[in-house]
Amino acid sequence: MKKEGILLIVSGPSGSGKGTVVSKLVESGEFCLSISATTRKPRDYEEEGVHYFFHTKEEFEAMAEKGELLEWASFCDNYYGTPKAYVEQCLKEGKNVILEIEVQGAFQVKELMPESVLIFLMAPNVTELRKRLTGRGTEDSSVIEKRISRAMEEMELVSKYDYVIINDTVEKSVEDIKTIVSAESMRTSRNSDINKMFKGEI
Amino acid sequence: MKKEGILLIVSGPSGSGKGTVVSKLVESGEFCLSISATTRKPRDYEEEGVHYFFHTKEEFEAMAEKGELLEWASFCDNYYGTPKAYVEQCLKEGKNVILEIEVQGAFQVKELMPESVLIFLMAPNVTELRKRLTGRGTEDSSVIEKRISRAMEEMELVSKYDYVIINDTVEKSVEDIKTIVSAESMRTSRNSDINKMFKGEI
Repeated sequence: MKKEGILLIVSGPSGSGKGTVVSKLVESGEFCLSISATTRKPRDYEEEGVHYFFHTKEEFEAMAEKGELLEWASFCDNYYGTPKAYVEQCLKEGKNVILEIEVQGAFQVKELMPESVLIFLMAPNVTELRKRLTGRGTEDSSVIEKRISRAMEEMELVSKYDYVIINDTVEKSVEDIKTIVSAESMRTSRNSDINKMFKGEI
Repeated sequence: MKKEGILLIVSGPSGSGKGTVVSKLVESGEFCLSISATTRKPRDYEEEGVHYFFHTKEEFEAMAEKGELLEWASFCDNYYGTPKAYVEQCLKEGKNVILEIEVQGAFQVKELMPESVLIFLMAPNVTELRKRLTGRGTEDSSVIEKRISRAMEEMELVSKYDYVIINDTVEKSVEDIKTIVSAESMRTSRNSDINKMFKGEI
Protein backbone atom coordinates (compact mmCIF):
# COMPACT_ATOMS: atom_id res chain seq x y z
CA MET A 1 0.00 0.00 0.00
CA LYS A 2 1.77 3.12 -1.25
CA LYS A 3 1.07 5.95 1.15
CA GLU A 4 1.18 9.68 0.51
CA GLY A 5 3.74 11.70 2.42
CA ILE A 6 2.75 14.05 5.19
CA LEU A 7 3.00 17.82 4.86
CA LEU A 8 4.40 19.41 8.00
CA ILE A 9 4.08 23.13 8.46
CA VAL A 10 6.43 24.48 11.08
CA SER A 11 6.05 27.99 12.47
CA GLY A 12 7.48 29.71 15.48
CA PRO A 13 8.50 33.15 16.64
CA SER A 14 11.94 34.52 15.93
CA GLY A 15 14.22 32.92 18.52
CA SER A 16 12.16 29.73 18.74
CA GLY A 17 14.97 27.88 17.00
CA LYS A 18 12.81 26.55 14.17
CA GLY A 19 15.47 27.12 11.52
CA THR A 20 17.98 24.82 13.23
CA VAL A 21 15.34 22.17 13.95
CA VAL A 22 14.13 22.17 10.34
CA SER A 23 17.73 21.90 9.03
CA LYS A 24 18.37 18.87 11.25
CA LEU A 25 15.18 17.21 10.02
CA VAL A 26 16.14 17.74 6.39
CA GLU A 27 19.68 16.48 7.09
CA SER A 28 18.21 13.27 8.53
CA GLY A 29 17.03 12.48 5.02
CA GLU A 30 13.48 11.77 6.13
CA PHE A 31 12.03 15.06 4.93
CA CYS A 32 11.97 17.11 1.77
CA LEU A 33 12.20 20.82 2.31
CA SER A 34 9.70 22.86 0.37
CA ILE A 35 11.50 25.48 -1.75
CA SER A 36 9.97 28.95 -1.87
CA ALA A 37 9.46 31.08 -4.92
CA THR A 38 10.55 34.70 -4.67
CA THR A 39 10.97 37.85 -6.72
CA ARG A 40 13.96 38.89 -4.65
CA LYS A 41 17.35 38.92 -6.43
CA PRO A 42 19.50 35.84 -5.74
CA ARG A 43 22.44 36.37 -3.41
CA ASP A 44 25.86 35.21 -4.56
CA TYR A 45 25.71 31.77 -3.00
CA GLU A 46 22.06 31.10 -3.84
CA GLU A 47 21.12 28.59 -6.49
CA GLU A 48 17.89 28.31 -8.47
CA GLY A 49 15.82 25.39 -7.24
CA VAL A 50 18.03 24.89 -4.18
CA HIS A 51 17.57 28.00 -2.07
CA TYR A 52 14.68 29.51 -4.01
CA PHE A 53 12.86 29.43 -7.30
CA PHE A 54 13.64 32.92 -8.63
CA HIS A 55 10.97 34.70 -10.66
CA THR A 56 10.15 38.09 -12.06
CA LYS A 57 7.29 40.02 -10.49
CA GLU A 58 5.12 39.26 -13.54
CA GLU A 59 5.85 35.54 -13.43
CA PHE A 60 5.08 35.43 -9.71
CA GLU A 61 1.80 37.29 -10.11
CA ALA A 62 0.80 34.94 -12.92
CA MET A 63 1.56 31.93 -10.68
CA ALA A 64 -0.59 33.39 -7.89
CA GLU A 65 -3.36 34.15 -10.37
CA LYS A 66 -3.37 30.57 -11.70
CA GLY A 67 -3.53 29.10 -8.16
CA GLU A 68 -0.05 27.62 -8.44
CA LEU A 69 0.95 28.83 -4.97
CA LEU A 70 -0.13 27.30 -1.67
CA GLU A 71 0.41 30.65 0.03
CA TRP A 72 2.19 33.88 -0.69
CA ALA A 73 2.93 37.23 0.89
CA SER A 74 4.89 40.34 0.09
CA PHE A 75 7.71 41.51 2.28
CA CYS A 76 10.01 44.51 1.68
CA ASP A 77 8.66 44.99 -1.84
CA ASN A 78 9.28 41.38 -2.80
CA TYR A 79 6.95 38.43 -3.11
CA TYR A 80 7.57 35.13 -1.36
CA GLY A 81 5.41 32.05 -1.83
CA THR A 82 5.18 28.27 -1.79
CA PRO A 83 4.83 26.57 -5.19
CA LYS A 84 2.15 23.91 -5.04
CA ALA A 85 3.55 21.57 -7.73
CA TYR A 86 6.80 20.73 -5.93
CA VAL A 87 5.03 19.99 -2.63
CA GLU A 88 2.36 17.86 -4.29
CA GLN A 89 4.94 15.92 -6.29
CA CYS A 90 6.96 15.04 -3.15
CA LEU A 91 3.83 14.00 -1.24
CA LYS A 92 2.67 11.81 -4.12
CA GLU A 93 6.05 10.07 -4.10
CA GLY A 94 5.41 9.24 -0.44
CA LYS A 95 7.95 11.75 0.87
CA ASN A 96 7.20 13.86 3.91
CA VAL A 97 7.55 17.55 3.17
CA ILE A 98 8.47 20.28 5.60
CA LEU A 99 7.42 23.86 5.17
CA GLU A 100 8.84 26.55 7.43
CA ILE A 101 6.52 29.52 7.22
CA GLU A 102 5.00 32.23 9.36
CA VAL A 103 1.56 32.00 10.92
CA GLN A 104 -0.61 33.62 8.25
CA GLY A 105 0.95 31.50 5.51
CA ALA A 106 0.52 28.41 7.66
CA PHE A 107 -3.23 29.00 7.94
CA GLN A 108 -3.52 29.59 4.19
CA VAL A 109 -1.88 26.23 3.47
CA LYS A 110 -3.98 24.40 6.08
CA GLU A 111 -7.12 25.72 4.41
CA LEU A 112 -6.03 24.45 1.01
CA MET A 113 -4.61 21.19 2.35
CA PRO A 114 -6.51 20.25 5.52
CA GLU A 115 -4.55 17.02 5.89
CA SER A 116 -1.38 19.03 6.54
CA VAL A 117 -0.01 19.10 10.07
CA LEU A 118 0.57 22.46 11.79
CA ILE A 119 3.36 22.50 14.34
CA PHE A 120 4.18 25.52 16.47
CA LEU A 121 7.68 25.63 17.91
CA MET A 122 8.33 27.90 20.85
CA ALA A 123 10.91 28.88 23.43
CA PRO A 124 9.95 27.61 26.91
CA ASN A 125 9.11 31.11 28.16
CA VAL A 126 9.59 34.77 27.45
CA THR A 127 12.66 35.02 29.72
CA GLU A 128 14.42 32.27 27.77
CA LEU A 129 13.32 33.84 24.47
CA ARG A 130 14.84 37.19 25.46
CA LYS A 131 18.05 35.40 26.46
CA ARG A 132 18.25 33.63 23.11
CA LEU A 133 17.58 36.77 21.11
CA THR A 134 20.10 38.76 23.16
CA GLY A 135 22.63 35.94 22.92
CA ARG A 136 22.75 36.30 19.15
CA GLY A 137 24.43 39.66 19.71
CA THR A 138 23.31 40.84 16.30
CA GLU A 139 20.38 43.09 17.16
CA ASP A 140 19.91 46.06 19.44
CA SER A 141 17.44 45.98 22.31
CA SER A 142 14.63 47.83 20.49
CA VAL A 143 14.64 45.19 17.74
CA ILE A 144 14.68 42.46 20.37
CA GLU A 145 11.70 43.97 22.18
CA LYS A 146 9.84 44.20 18.87
CA ARG A 147 10.53 40.51 18.23
CA ILE A 148 9.32 39.64 21.72
CA SER A 149 6.07 41.53 21.36
CA ARG A 150 5.59 39.87 17.95
CA ALA A 151 6.18 36.48 19.65
CA MET A 152 3.53 37.38 22.24
CA GLU A 153 1.07 38.10 19.42
CA GLU A 154 1.90 34.85 17.63
CA MET A 155 1.44 32.90 20.86
CA GLU A 156 -2.22 34.00 20.83
CA LEU A 157 -2.67 31.91 17.69
CA VAL A 158 -1.07 28.74 19.01
CA SER A 159 -4.44 27.04 19.57
CA LYS A 160 -5.04 27.10 15.81
CA TYR A 161 -2.06 24.79 15.38
CA ASP A 162 -2.35 21.01 15.71
CA TYR A 163 0.72 20.52 17.88
CA VAL A 164 2.96 22.65 20.04
CA ILE A 165 6.57 21.81 20.85
CA ILE A 166 8.61 23.52 23.53
CA ASN A 167 12.06 23.73 22.02
CA ASP A 168 14.33 22.96 24.97
CA THR A 169 17.01 21.28 22.89
CA VAL A 170 17.29 20.82 19.14
CA GLU A 171 17.68 17.03 19.50
CA LYS A 172 14.48 16.71 21.54
CA SER A 173 12.48 18.87 19.15
CA VAL A 174 13.71 16.84 16.17
CA GLU A 175 12.61 13.65 17.97
CA ASP A 176 9.26 15.26 18.89
CA ILE A 177 8.57 16.09 15.26
CA LYS A 178 9.48 12.57 14.16
CA THR A 179 7.12 11.22 16.85
CA ILE A 180 4.30 13.41 15.52
CA VAL A 181 4.92 12.16 11.98
CA SER A 182 4.93 8.51 13.14
CA ALA A 183 1.64 9.00 14.99
CA GLU A 184 0.08 10.91 12.10
CA SER A 185 0.96 8.08 9.72
CA MET A 186 -1.27 5.82 11.87
CA ARG A 187 -4.29 8.14 11.59
CA THR A 188 -7.23 6.32 10.07
CA SER A 189 -7.76 9.31 7.74
CA ARG A 190 -4.35 8.55 6.19
CA ASN A 191 -5.13 4.82 5.88
CA SER A 192 -8.37 4.80 3.95
CA ASP A 193 -7.34 1.65 2.08
CA ILE A 194 -6.77 -0.38 5.22
CA ASN A 195 -10.07 -2.19 4.89
CA LYS A 196 -9.28 -3.33 1.35
CA MET A 197 -5.82 -4.37 2.47
CA PHE A 198 -7.29 -6.44 5.29
CA LYS A 199 -9.57 -8.26 2.88
CA GLY A 200 -6.64 -8.90 0.53
CA GLU A 201 -8.18 -6.79 -2.25
CA ILE A 202 -5.00 -4.75 -2.63
CA MET B 1 2.07 22.75 34.49
CA LYS B 2 0.17 19.68 35.70
CA LYS B 3 -1.33 17.93 32.70
CA GLU B 4 -4.32 15.61 32.62
CA GLY B 5 -3.70 12.05 31.53
CA ILE B 6 -4.87 10.74 28.19
CA LEU B 7 -7.70 8.23 27.85
CA LEU B 8 -6.88 5.56 25.29
CA ILE B 9 -9.65 3.35 24.02
CA VAL B 10 -8.37 0.22 22.33
CA SER B 11 -10.64 -1.99 20.27
CA GLY B 12 -9.97 -4.72 17.81
CA PRO B 13 -11.54 -7.90 16.51
CA SER B 14 -11.03 -11.21 18.26
CA GLY B 15 -7.57 -12.40 17.16
CA SER B 16 -6.20 -8.87 16.75
CA GLY B 17 -4.02 -9.47 19.80
CA LYS B 18 -5.30 -6.47 21.73
CA GLY B 19 -5.39 -8.30 25.06
CA THR B 20 -1.67 -9.04 24.96
CA VAL B 21 -0.77 -5.54 23.80
CA VAL B 22 -2.87 -3.92 26.54
CA SER B 23 -1.29 -6.19 29.20
CA LYS B 24 2.20 -5.17 28.08
CA LEU B 25 1.27 -1.49 28.22
CA VAL B 26 -0.06 -1.85 31.75
CA GLU B 27 3.04 -3.83 32.78
CA SER B 28 5.23 -0.97 31.53
CA GLY B 29 3.79 1.11 34.38
CA GLU B 30 2.88 4.00 32.07
CA PHE B 31 -0.83 3.22 31.92
CA CYS B 32 -3.66 2.56 34.34
CA LEU B 33 -6.09 -0.06 33.23
CA SER B 34 -9.72 0.89 33.57
CA ILE B 35 -11.57 -1.70 35.66
CA SER B 36 -15.01 -2.74 34.49
CA ALA B 37 -18.11 -3.13 36.59
CA THR B 38 -20.12 -6.29 36.12
CA THR B 39 -23.08 -8.20 37.49
CA ARG B 40 -21.45 -11.51 36.65
CA LYS B 41 -20.40 -13.70 39.60
CA PRO B 42 -16.68 -13.50 40.46
CA ARG B 43 -14.59 -16.50 39.44
CA ASP B 44 -12.37 -18.11 42.07
CA TYR B 45 -9.25 -16.10 41.28
CA GLU B 46 -11.01 -12.78 40.68
CA GLU B 47 -10.70 -9.95 43.18
CA GLU B 48 -12.99 -6.98 43.71
CA GLY B 49 -11.40 -3.80 42.31
CA VAL B 50 -8.64 -5.74 40.57
CA HIS B 51 -10.36 -7.79 37.91
CA TYR B 52 -13.80 -6.20 38.18
CA PHE B 53 -16.03 -4.16 40.41
CA PHE B 54 -18.75 -6.70 41.23
CA HIS B 55 -22.30 -5.44 41.64
CA THR B 56 -25.85 -6.72 41.91
CA LYS B 57 -28.16 -6.09 39.01
CA GLU B 58 -29.98 -3.41 41.02
CA GLU B 59 -26.76 -1.61 41.92
CA PHE B 60 -25.59 -1.70 38.31
CA GLU B 61 -28.88 -0.35 36.99
CA ALA B 62 -28.76 2.45 39.56
CA MET B 63 -25.22 3.37 38.43
CA ALA B 64 -26.32 3.47 34.81
CA GLU B 65 -29.37 5.55 35.77
CA LYS B 66 -27.23 8.09 37.64
CA GLY B 67 -24.80 8.48 34.71
CA GLU B 68 -21.96 6.87 36.62
CA LEU B 69 -20.96 4.66 33.69
CA LEU B 70 -19.07 5.80 30.61
CA GLU B 71 -20.60 2.94 28.64
CA TRP B 72 -22.36 -0.30 29.34
CA ALA B 73 -23.83 -3.29 27.57
CA SER B 74 -25.43 -6.57 28.48
CA PHE B 75 -23.93 -9.87 27.43
CA CYS B 76 -25.22 -13.37 28.30
CA ASP B 77 -27.71 -11.96 30.82
CA ASN B 78 -25.06 -9.94 32.64
CA TYR B 79 -24.20 -6.27 32.55
CA TYR B 80 -20.71 -4.99 31.86
CA GLY B 81 -19.73 -1.33 32.02
CA THR B 82 -17.02 1.25 32.64
CA PRO B 83 -17.29 3.25 35.88
CA LYS B 84 -16.66 6.93 35.18
CA ALA B 85 -15.26 7.89 38.60
CA TYR B 86 -12.18 5.66 38.47
CA VAL B 87 -11.24 6.80 34.94
CA GLU B 88 -11.74 10.47 35.77
CA GLN B 89 -9.71 10.17 38.97
CA CYS B 90 -6.73 8.61 37.15
CA LEU B 91 -6.84 11.23 34.39
CA LYS B 92 -6.97 14.07 36.93
CA GLU B 93 -3.87 12.63 38.60
CA GLY B 94 -2.11 12.91 35.23
CA LYS B 95 -2.13 9.17 34.58
CA ASN B 96 -2.90 7.78 31.15
CA VAL B 97 -5.77 5.32 31.22
CA ILE B 98 -6.34 2.44 28.89
CA LEU B 99 -9.75 1.03 28.17
CA GLU B 100 -10.10 -2.18 26.18
CA ILE B 101 -13.65 -2.29 24.86
CA GLU B 102 -15.62 -3.30 21.80
CA VAL B 103 -16.64 -0.88 19.07
CA GLN B 104 -20.07 0.24 20.28
CA GLY B 105 -18.76 0.94 23.77
CA ALA B 106 -15.81 2.82 22.26
CA PHE B 107 -18.13 5.18 20.40
CA GLN B 108 -20.23 5.75 23.53
CA VAL B 109 -17.14 6.81 25.49
CA LYS B 110 -15.83 9.03 22.68
CA GLU B 111 -19.15 10.86 22.65
CA LEU B 112 -18.98 11.51 26.40
CA MET B 113 -15.25 12.26 26.39
CA PRO B 114 -14.31 13.65 22.98
CA GLU B 115 -10.70 14.18 24.07
CA SER B 116 -10.24 10.41 24.36
CA VAL B 117 -8.17 8.65 21.71
CA LEU B 118 -9.68 5.75 19.77
CA ILE B 119 -7.22 3.14 18.59
CA PHE B 120 -8.18 0.19 16.43
CA LEU B 121 -5.84 -2.77 16.51
CA MET B 122 -6.02 -5.29 13.69
CA ALA B 123 -4.36 -8.33 12.22
CA PRO B 124 -2.51 -7.49 8.96
CA ASN B 125 -5.09 -9.31 6.84
CA VAL B 126 -7.84 -11.88 6.94
CA THR B 127 -5.50 -14.76 6.08
CA GLU B 128 -3.29 -13.95 9.06
CA LEU B 129 -6.36 -13.48 11.29
CA ARG B 130 -7.65 -16.93 10.35
CA LYS B 131 -4.22 -18.40 11.07
CA ARG B 132 -4.14 -16.78 14.51
CA LEU B 133 -7.64 -17.88 15.43
CA THR B 134 -6.97 -21.43 14.22
CA GLY B 135 -3.62 -21.47 16.00
CA ARG B 136 -5.34 -21.07 19.36
CA GLY B 137 -6.72 -24.56 18.85
CA THR B 138 -9.60 -23.82 21.23
CA GLU B 139 -12.47 -23.22 18.84
CA ASP B 140 -14.03 -25.19 16.03
CA SER B 141 -14.11 -23.85 12.50
CA SER B 142 -17.71 -22.59 12.64
CA VAL B 143 -16.84 -20.36 15.62
CA ILE B 144 -13.72 -19.17 13.81
CA GLU B 145 -15.71 -18.28 10.71
CA LYS B 146 -18.18 -16.36 12.89
CA ARG B 147 -15.32 -14.40 14.45
CA ILE B 148 -13.92 -13.63 11.02
CA SER B 149 -17.20 -12.35 9.68
CA ARG B 150 -17.58 -10.25 12.84
CA ALA B 151 -14.06 -8.87 12.23
CA MET B 152 -15.10 -7.97 8.67
CA GLU B 153 -18.05 -6.04 10.07
CA GLU B 154 -15.91 -4.24 12.63
CA MET B 155 -13.39 -3.29 9.94
CA GLU B 156 -16.18 -1.25 8.30
CA LEU B 157 -16.11 1.03 11.34
CA VAL B 158 -12.35 1.59 11.41
CA SER B 159 -12.64 5.08 9.90
CA LYS B 160 -14.52 6.22 13.01
CA TYR B 161 -11.38 5.53 15.05
CA ASP B 162 -8.57 8.09 15.37
CA TYR B 163 -5.72 5.68 14.75
CA VAL B 164 -5.24 2.22 13.30
CA ILE B 165 -2.40 -0.10 14.18
CA ILE B 166 -1.52 -3.22 12.26
CA ASN B 167 -0.45 -5.66 14.94
CA ASP B 168 2.50 -7.43 13.36
CA THR B 169 4.36 -7.96 16.62
CA VAL B 170 3.34 -7.15 20.19
CA GLU B 171 6.51 -5.11 20.75
CA LYS B 172 5.89 -2.90 17.72
CA SER B 173 2.25 -2.31 18.64
CA VAL B 174 3.23 -1.35 22.18
CA GLU B 175 5.75 1.13 20.76
CA ASP B 176 3.15 2.44 18.29
CA ILE B 177 0.70 3.14 21.10
CA LYS B 178 3.39 4.91 23.13
CA THR B 179 4.21 7.00 20.04
CA ILE B 180 0.56 7.97 19.68
CA VAL B 181 0.40 9.00 23.34
CA SER B 182 3.59 11.08 23.01
CA ALA B 183 2.24 12.88 19.96
CA GLU B 184 -1.19 13.39 21.54
CA SER B 185 0.46 15.00 24.57
CA MET B 186 1.83 17.67 22.20
CA ARG B 187 -1.64 18.52 20.79
CA THR B 188 -2.45 22.17 21.34
CA SER B 189 -5.88 21.13 22.63
CA ARG B 190 -4.14 19.35 25.52
CA ASN B 191 -1.89 22.35 26.23
CA SER B 192 -4.36 25.17 26.65
CA ASP B 193 -2.20 26.76 29.37
CA ILE B 194 0.89 27.01 27.17
CA ASN B 195 0.36 30.69 26.50
CA LYS B 196 0.23 31.52 30.22
CA MET B 197 3.28 29.37 30.81
CA PHE B 198 5.15 31.22 28.09
CA LYS B 199 4.35 34.55 29.71
CA GLY B 200 5.46 33.22 33.09
CA GLU B 201 1.95 33.58 34.55
CA ILE B 202 1.93 29.99 35.78
